[in-house]
Amino acid sequence: MGTSFHTVPGAIVAPRGFLAAGVTCGIQRLGTGKGSLKGRKPDLALIVSEVPATVAGLFTTNQVCAAPVKICLERVRRGVAQAIVANSGNANACTGARGLRDAHAMTAQVARALHMPAEHVLVASTGRIGVPLPMPAVRAGIRAALDALDNSPEAAAAAAHAIMTSDTRPKHLAIEFRLGPRTVRLGGIAKGAGMIHPGLSLNGRRPAAQPPTAPHATMLCFLTSDAAVAPAALRRALRDAVARSFNRITVDGDMSTNDTVLLLANGLAENTPLTGSEPAFGVFQAALDHVCLELAKMIVRDGEGVHRVVTVRVSGARTAREADAAARAVANSALVKTSWHGGDPNWGRVMDALGYSVARIVEERVDIGYSAPGSRQILWSVRGGQPTRVPFARLCAAVAPKEFDLHIRLNQGRAGAVIYAADLTEAYVDFNKGDVTNPAALGG
Amino acid sequence: MGTSFHTVPGAIVAPRGFLAAGVTCGIQRLGTGKGSLKGRKPDLALIVSEVPATVAGLFTTNQVCAAPVKICLERVRRGVAQAIVANSGNANACTGARGLRDAHAMTAQVARALHMPAEHVLVASTGRIGVPLPMPAVRAGIRAALDALDNSPEAAAAAAHAIMTSDTRPKHLAIEFRLGPRTVRLGGIAKGAGMIHPGLSLNGRRPAAQPPTAPHATMLCFLTSDAAVAPAALRRALRDAVARSFNRITVDGDMSTNDTVLLLANGLAENTPLTGSEPAFGVFQAALDHVCLELAKMIVRDGEGVHRVVTVRVSGARTAREADAAARAVANSALVKTSWHGGDPNWGRVMDALGYSVARIVEERVDIGYSAPGSRQILWSVRGGQPTRVPFARLCAAVAPKEFDLHIRLNQGRAGAVIYAADLTEAYVDFNKGDVTNPAALGG
Repeated sequence: MGTSFHTVPGAIVAPRGFLAAGVTCGIQRLGTGKGSLKGRKPDLALIVSEVPATVAGLFTTNQVCAAPVKICLERVRRGVAQAIVANSGNANACTGARGLRDAHAMTAQVARALHMPAEHVLVASTGRIGVPLPMPAVRAGIRAALDALDNSPEAAAAAAHAIMTSDTRPKHLAIEFRLGPRTVRLGGIAKGAGMIHPGLSLNGRRPAAQPPTAPHATMLCFLTSDAAVAPAALRRALRDAVARSFNRITVDGDMSTNDTVLLLANGLAENTPLTGSEPAFGVFQAALDHVCLELAKMIVRDGEGVHRVVTVRVSGARTAREADAAARAVANSALVKTSWHGGDPNWGRVMDALGYSVARIVEERVDIGYSAPGSRQILWSVRGGQPTRVPFARLCAAVAPKEFDLHIRLNQGRAGAVIYAADLTEAYVDFNKGDVTNPAALGG
Repeated sequence: MGTSFHTVPGAIVAPRGFLAAGVTCGIQRLGTGKGSLKGRKPDLALIVSEVPATVAGLFTTNQVCAAPVKICLERVRRGVAQAIVANSGNANACTGARGLRDAHAMTAQVARALHMPAEHVLVASTGRIGVPLPMPAVRAGIRAALDALDNSPEAAAAAAHAIMTSDTRPKHLAIEFRLGPRTVRLGGIAKGAGMIHPGLSLNGRRPAAQPPTAPHATMLCFLTSDAAVAPAALRRALRDAVARSFNRITVDGDMSTNDTVLLLANGLAENTPLTGSEPAFGVFQAALDHVCLELAKMIVRDGEGVHRVVTVRVSGARTAREADAAARAVANSALVKTSWHGGDPNWGRVMDALGYSVARIVEERVDIGYSAPGSRQILWSVRGGQPTRVPFARLCAAVAPKEFDLHIRLNQGRAGAVIYAADLTEAYVDFNKGDVTNPAALGG
């Protein structure tokens, strides 16, 4: 990133004036322990700012979008929010009028208890599609979360844990940086795992520049900051940070109905409010880029069944759109992904995927190589469309580590793109085929 | 198909005047048996017509296309051919000038031996990309195949076996039908298995109407007939038959560099030559449609690791292109495919995939249901975007068979599309991750 940031504990409660909670209300009706909440994972999270905050949000561009996304789309437009309530285990998607009523009821309950307008409460869900929320459990969960609200790192960790579905570990981060004379903090929690190939936009509409080729498990990310930022500047900062992070990851190429990124900035750091044109805004943008990219990479590393993480770096494309298309074709190819899993430097499959992408490819100009993450020491397996003399064993060694970079030079122009991708493993298939003899445990 | 056809033995040698051979020349350098051909599978096929035949061909639209495809593209344009030589185990793709020389040499050797112009000999390859052909072995194989040429069903079966790569069984079919007073035959052999999501066209260029969303293992199909058909009519017939068969299948969404469909019609049935406007042409078209669709379905059923075959039937789209996009989004979704494998009637994942397709989707109008293959007795799991009251156990029973139809009504217009798809299994991943400790046995 160029800039380095000072990491601090506390994730979403690291910035001044934020409280969090994560509790168990039993939304996932597991086969065992029916009636009792003992031993179940937390499934309801609450994040609250002590004062109204400027808000920005990005949402799935899937045409089938969940009830909570519909509500957020409308409320985020006002630019002010103060709380986020989120559940895991049930996506509240394809649930019709009832789903909208339920999502509204969740925000109304939080608003009443905290004496704020319902319009200042945002809502998110993740889990199985098409099943109505068990509202008695959700209501009890919200009551428990309101009681548990706290600004301790433990409370933030509980919230990070509560939004997990097939994630194997919570994802959270907070950093501290200076804006002029003031110390500012930015924190976030995220979840992912499967159905990960986000295509987020500010209004839920798909930007023309972004090919809708890619689908993903829901990803949720909630960010908090005590910076003071004008609404338009905050929106722009989040849009740009997401374009460089969450919109550049893919686990399985499936885009979810529920993807949501929300950022609350409550201004309690008392910096001179950022309008987007001052140098300090650049610092804030770099900080936001850093947190988003780190959380995005945590999602890929913890993707369902993921064994290897590969950063696909395309350069020399004619246009940014073509660079993106080429990188996504490679990153989503089942054959390329299985070869990564096998530690097979199969550049033929990479060539094949490039060839069927919408990017202009001239076979005789393509270079393909491997490096350690972020390194410029590239071992080239293909130059000008032809295999190099690098021995097979050396190529195998280059793709053996848990993480490596795949470099593709198209030598057609000056545009580039980066996609953070994962391999395709038996464990992914095994997890997602589910177990119909235990419907309650079926995945999203 | 409406029409039913009389099946006959002999596949590609069932029509008058065709000979075939399938021999072992050791192109796949297996780890064991080095130097000896004993125990290896046949890997070189030869098909010859006793007289020059009218020819039509369709080829991969991948921008990275193999040397044999480049040669066929040029030769098929002349409209006349008399022989096809094909190898498995090596794709002769990304092999540069040397690859082109080798492919030319294969056709020249056949032409010299059979006293025909090299331009009348076509060539195809399938296997690993980026490795030069072992030409001494190939030359010896062509000599052996020339010696073995025969019009027996065994010779045709040997040819079907020789083009197999990861296929577990040969795919062949021949039918007999009447064109006026003459009895005509049409036969074919095919191979597939992985990298199966063809997007074939007459000139290797991608038709605007066909979204390049989908990638596939090479598919090869060689068809023979003793019908007399004018070149333009034969091209049109093959283009239309492929549009309804091979271009409607997907195993893994990966489009190969080598996909090739060739049809030789030598006229020895002595029917009045078909020009494309007479009723008899309709009979020929129906016969070709039938053979292509049956061979295409054999490819899906024998796809790498395939346990379940699902026919995705989309109706009510605004345009044919949108219907196709919707069907392919569902058919290529990793999450939908793993749920098929698990016998999980997860309509939420179907909705999700529809939502991120380029087709216009209105969630509240979507119907999703299941039936036995070809049946109109549909069990609806979703109507108007909402789950029906059909019990989960009944839905599970509907998706439990080895083959079923998935019906999707978008209720937006009158266009429809069908895609023949397969599930995604641990066996697919296991097969394609390969074994780098035995490079010679790595997949394509």
